Amino acid sequence: MKIDGRAHRTIWETADGRAVEVIDQTLLPHRLAFQRIDDLPGAVAAIKTMVVRGAPLIGATAAYGFAIALARAADDDSLDAAYRLLLASRPTAVNLRYALDDLRALVTPLTPSERGVAAWKRAAAFCHEDVAQNLSIGEAGFALIEAAHRASGRPVSILTHCNAGWLATVDWGTATAPIYLAHDRGVPVHVFVDETRPRNQGASLTAFELGQHGVPHTLIADNAGGHLMQHGRVDMCIVGADRITARGDAANKIGTYLKALAARANDVPFYVAAPHTTIDWTIDDGVKEIEIEERDGAEVTHIHGLLDDGSVARVLLAPPGTRAANPAFDVTPAELVSGIITDRGVCEATKPALAALFGR
Amino acid sequence: MKIDGRAHRTIWETADGRAVEVIDQTLLPHRLAFQRIDDLPGAVAAIKTMVVRGAPLIGATAAYGFAIALARAADDDSLDAAYRLLLASRPTAVNLRYALDDLRALVTPLTPSERGVAAWKRAAAFCHEDVAQNLSIGEAGFALIEAAHRASGRPVSILTHCNAGWLATVDWGTATAPIYLAHDRGVPVHVFVDETRPRNQGASLTAFELGQHGVPHTLIADNAGGHLMQHGRVDMCIVGADRITARGDAANKIGTYLKALAARANDVPFYVAAPHTTIDWTIDDGVKEIEIEERDGAEVTHIHGLLDDGSVARVLLAPPGTRAANPAFDVTPAELVSGIITDRGVCEATKPALAALFGR
Repeated sequence: MKIDGRAHRTIWETADGRAVEVIDQTLLPHRLAFQRIDDLPGAVAAIKTMVVRGAPLIGATAAYGFAIALARAADDDSLDAAYRLLLASRPTAVNLRYALDDLRALVTPLTPSERGVAAWKRAAAFCHEDVAQNLSIGEAGFALIEAAHRASGRPVSILTHCNAGWLATVDWGTATAPIYLAHDRGVPVHVFVDETRPRNQGASLTAFELGQHGVPHTLIADNAGGHLMQHGRVDMCIVGADRITARGDAANKIGTYLKALAARANDVPFYVAAPHTTIDWTIDDGVKEIEIEERDGAEVTHIHGLLDDGSVARVLLAPPGTRAANPAFDVTPAELVSGIITDRGVCEATKPALAALFGR
Repeated sequence: MKIDGRAHRTIWETADGRAVEVIDQTLLPHRLAFQRIDDLPGAVAAIKTMVVRGAPLIGATAAYGFAIALARAADDDSLDAAYRLLLASRPTAVNLRYALDDLRALVTPLTPSERGVAAWKRAAAFCHEDVAQNLSIGEAGFALIEAAHRASGRPVSILTHCNAGWLATVDWGTATAPIYLAHDRGVPVHVFVDETRPRNQGASLTAFELGQHGVPHTLIADNAGGHLMQHGRVDMCIVGADRITARGDAANKIGTYLKALAARANDVPFYVAAPHTTIDWTIDDGVKEIEIEERDGAEVTHIHGLLDDGSVARVLLAPPGTRAANPAFDVTPAELVSGIITDRGVCEATKPALAALFGR
């Protein structure tokens, strides 16, 4: 999508074909800087330090990192070492493992001299597939936004939580793909952006990308969404997901569940947008079966922001020594989900509907 | 309640009987400092700049401010000027107007020489009444906590939102009074403290006062409460209220409604604690009839905190120029409220139950 009026992706090949560049997302929204990744340690560090974040983008970065490593040293030992280093860079990221396993299976039968080029092509194909998948999600969701606009004749007011935006993917995003398509096609939209405490991905990333692309939006505290829905100011919610169970329970950033409850109480459609790869067919009951990562309490007690002098600083928000709990995700039960927007179309959040859509 | 092991109130008379001192709440939780109020401009400034906040404490400060002004100049013109200046210091605070009207009615018939002393005594009585009222709320709520403890045999886990604590009142607080009583009487409690964005009264004030008094507590992002209730980690919610309608709808800090929805969905009792003066018998439908204050968006885009060097700074959290909406309160419909804890006892959040309790 656009930054300063120019189309960007989150990861792209350099002109010499030996490296990739990424947006350093740790500096957003306060500074836009690119980082060149031209060796294995650089790829590992970019993933580990969250220069790149979002499951699809992590997968793409790992794939390119693997290819870059193999271009330098592609014997079996080097291959194995690169695989292990990249895998350990963010152990819980599913797409990361998927990309690495896929590349390893592809190149292992090849001679070392063929491995680098083959891996590079596959990494590029990964990025291509991610963009295509997100565009398919976008088309499916666009139909919902367009229908809402036709029904009301007004701009469609959409609430989103966290950043399931293009910055989390190679381009378009998941929850944001329908929004960008609607905006680009002239269907008027307005987005309420949950700031998404404690890591504030909404305030720092979603507000940034919507603003740069020119999509009208308003930042709100996570607390405000219920009140807005109660007063008819939200036409639909669209959020992303980290994992969707076979019956449609959706794990997503902490706080998503509260918005789903408010949406249901106020008859606001609540959509979860995600590629089909997000569906975990092995589990049903998300609340019982999905383990929720407990992150460092310092993410709650401290926050980063921009000082008046233009430097970024971390400030303490609570009394020193305050203990904080920080569950990173929550699970929205399927009965609160109006529909799942996938790259294969929209379906109800039920086991039969999901199985039917995906031919299982 | 206690600070550093010593019992405190939020406002107290100085030894010379000519002034009051208050805790400068703008500096909490990072610094504990007291401020002497010995003239009218000082009282007006303390209210206006939120050195004191919370409706009961604002009322008490205004009453003492009025008395201090009358001790210096008590002719009719001075009386009128003091009344108007104090009233304008925080125009939406109901207790402020109530206290000032009461004092004005009391002293107007008196001779100027009698006015100062009479007003001072009435201000002291106000504080006395506030403490007694909060203790009555505390007793009523204590019974609920004690019953929960008896039923489970475990520490009672209570979630609260914003600061309806002793810092908002003269002592004890409203939502916190039952908690302090339980703790002081040996009924084990643990409090989940919503940080309460955007002004973070939970992180800065509730965490401070619970910590100083020794009540076990854990700070959480506002987003986390739904997840905790879904997993059985909250036994009850107790929140304050700014206004309760005749049928039991409760206006309170933004985000309260989301917690009430989560409580209902997970069978967690949700209590609103407030003195009977919070009930507005003239309205029924809180969602339709209570106008919600829209505050400056900068409260969402910026936040104050403590830098590593010990100084307090304001940082920007969003891209520069981001538009933010900032509704300050929301309304929790009565059907989500399990009970209203008042200084006259606990009752259901229904029109007949409230009318019966208060003999109307």
